[in-house]
Amino acid sequence: MKISKDLQKLNSHGYEVLLSSYLQELGKVGIGEFGLWRSPYTQEYEEAANLVAGWMKEHGFEVKKDGIGNIIGRIEGTDNQARAVTMGSHLDTVRGGGIYDGMLGVAGGIIAAGYLLKTYGRPQNPIEVIAFIGEEGSRFSGLMGSKWMAGDLEEKELVKVDENGISLKAAAQAFGYSLSPSGSTPRSDVEAFLELHIEQGPVLEAKGCPIGIVSGITGMRQAELTIRGRSDHAGTTPMGMRHDALLAAAKMIGAMDLCVRQSGGDTVFTVGRISANPGAVNVVAAETVFTIDMRDPDPKKLKGLYSQLEEETLKVAAQTGVLVEWKNILAVEPVPCSPILRDILAEAARKAGLDYHEMVSGAGHDAIMAARFAPIGMLFVPSTGGRSHCGEEYTSPSQCMAGVTVLAEAIRQLAYKNKY
Amino acid sequence: MKISKDLQKLNSHGYEVLLSSYLQELGKVGIGEFGLWRSPYTQEYEEAANLVAGWMKEHGFEVKKDGIGNIIGRIEGTDNQARAVTMGSHLDTVRGGGIYDGMLGVAGGIIAAGYLLKTYGRPQNPIEVIAFIGEEGSRFSGLMGSKWMAGDLEEKELVKVDENGISLKAAAQAFGYSLSPSGSTPRSDVEAFLELHIEQGPVLEAKGCPIGIVSGITGMRQAELTIRGRSDHAGTTPMGMRHDALLAAAKMIGAMDLCVRQSGGDTVFTVGRISANPGAVNVVAAETVFTIDMRDPDPKKLKGLYSQLEEETLKVAAQTGVLVEWKNILAVEPVPCSPILRDILAEAARKAGLDYHEMVSGAGHDAIMAARFAPIGMLFVPSTGGRSHCGEEYTSPSQCMAGVTVLAEAIRQLAYKNKY
Repeated sequence: MKISKDLQKLNSHGYEVLLSSYLQELGKVGIGEFGLWRSPYTQEYEEAANLVAGWMKEHGFEVKKDGIGNIIGRIEGTDNQARAVTMGSHLDTVRGGGIYDGMLGVAGGIIAAGYLLKTYGRPQNPIEVIAFIGEEGSRFSGLMGSKWMAGDLEEKELVKVDENGISLKAAAQAFGYSLSPSGSTPRSDVEAFLELHIEQGPVLEAKGCPIGIVSGITGMRQAELTIRGRSDHAGTTPMGMRHDALLAAAKMIGAMDLCVRQSGGDTVFTVGRISANPGAVNVVAAETVFTIDMRDPDPKKLKGLYSQLEEETLKVAAQTGVLVEWKNILAVEPVPCSPILRDILAEAARKAGLDYHEMVSGAGHDAIMAARFAPIGMLFVPSTGGRSHCGEEYTSPSQCMAGVTVLAEAIRQLAYKNKY
Repeated sequence: MKISKDLQKLNSHGYEVLLSSYLQELGKVGIGEFGLWRSPYTQEYEEAANLVAGWMKEHGFEVKKDGIGNIIGRIEGTDNQARAVTMGSHLDTVRGGGIYDGMLGVAGGIIAAGYLLKTYGRPQNPIEVIAFIGEEGSRFSGLMGSKWMAGDLEEKELVKVDENGISLKAAAQAFGYSLSPSGSTPRSDVEAFLELHIEQGPVLEAKGCPIGIVSGITGMRQAELTIRGRSDHAGTTPMGMRHDALLAAAKMIGAMDLCVRQSGGDTVFTVGRISANPGAVNVVAAETVFTIDMRDPDPKKLKGLYSQLEEETLKVAAQTGVLVEWKNILAVEPVPCSPILRDILAEAARKAGLDYHEMVSGAGHDAIMAARFAPIGMLFVPSTGGRSHCGEEYTSPSQCMAGVTVLAEAIRQLAYKNKY
């Protein structure tokens, strides 16, 4: 396959260096005791936002911030009636995060759109790069910026407080964000939303594949299970007379894991947290608490399997004489990507001479909320060692640039209507 | 079977009320924020020790305290050359303990020996009631008083410090205990040691049996296992690419439990404590730490099974791609009770018209250390609901008195040489 000359130009050393410099510069803002940490409505977040707004202006974007603090860089189109072709990701980080998560989609979007404007002039459709605020939920609830844009951030979420007792509303207003119109309204002027993101997992690296095209964002169920047995002396209570909450929990975890594996497909199941009471080496546990996290892109399978897991725990509970209590923490339905945008991304990868792998996104992204107001497409680039949400998070400059190249070509298809 | 008239006399209401009053009175000394808590070398411990010494004197004992603080109440025998027939238990408690654990063996011993002296006069062999200090290890290491009497408390244990940095030596000397002769020497003048104790388990209650005659004190292995896997994103890492330390731990616990159950017999196995790192609902655990506690009265089985458990964990480690590290916490060899003393206790129960059940002691007791200087025998009475080491610990006055009755008859056999 012949690589287009224009794409080669974008993929040239100059743009790769510029992209790296953006990521490195953003990665310095908010470095402190906990590694990189930039939560919404802080001095460091504003500093990062101003950097991004400045770069947007340098590339010829008009820049505005909306009522919650999302930054929107826009290139007007030649067609006044046309809907905007948008892309972006988020600028906030987890506590101790890396410099690629979110930022690649913002910085890469600026490079891609800036390149298109410079190379092809004004597009037919408006192009926007959006830097969402508060995707990670490291201060308030997650996906808050994109939820605002979807018109779905409810009044009650605005009064929820952070760990210091400051409400989202108070924090936003302290930085001059009005949060009006109250309740926000969904955008109806968007043709498409594309999000370029690091994979945050090991699949692309393992496959030696530079591009992941996301078929859909996985659905999720999280729950906390409390197993209630009886505390007994570890020496004096015969095995047959126990109601051991920790042993029951271990058996439940094993049974649920087996159930998920036997179901086949892409489902992932994780027990990440566990504790036992009273928690002494010589005392049979009276209570054990653990969490489960299950994800699958098929809503029907997710629902069915969740019920099966509950049955598995009840079976073990009956065998071991314990009680089990399920507390649902989170239920997120799967979000499919637009088949048309998947095709456009695949075609763009082919044009760039890059192999791609169709895959599910196991993590949540702003695209989930964007799907409420526009068709969405997502693009992954490899994460070294599958690492993310940590200082070791790394995607090489050329790997990042491969993603930006595919993104730019897809945006060109959408906004220039195959004019070039 | 005919109940002896003398035993009926001991078992009369007067002695039962006296025993109860001793237990109730001791149970008030050290009641505070954490329930009943009496650790060695505290004002409350001294107060309890003085109560006990006073009661001993009232019953005609000579009382002395040894170098570490054990109280020895002695009735001299008519035979100057005869070795002492001893009994007893401990006076200290766990934090938040009950009023029967240890104290029944001391208060019951005073009642039994006092009754024998009053009824039959001076015995042939000397009789001693010993109140050991520091059995529970709630301040310094456990079994310290009986270990001292066995001549096995090493110099290095004397300099170990409590949670406030005070050494055993400093604490003892502050209350006037010399800890000399340094290193202590084992007693060689003891004919037998009998310990009456609450069962601290549910077996006698479940069998509706008033007396347990202990065949031996179980051996024990305790270890802390650290499972090292890899931290991964719970959404983006396919199940087949994980090294999940918590899942591996759950499987190991299940496999070890099964291995123990399939071995048959009296072995008990407990995982009482577990934790995972980083311990987040949406992160695959990099590390999981848990403890194991396994007990069996057969030293060969205990050793063999411990090796098998290690093999079970290595199998799971190989399947799941994790590393497992064993850190041994404690290894205690089983201590058999003297067959002669078991027979004497059984005969005494028969004389008292009380059913008895031969059983293993799953908990450790001062008798373990006494076995180093004399043949030992142990006697259990039921624990309501199997509860112990808590405020709900309960054995009724008549249940306690049944144990004292059997104890008295056995001591009579031993110290009066069937004279009566």
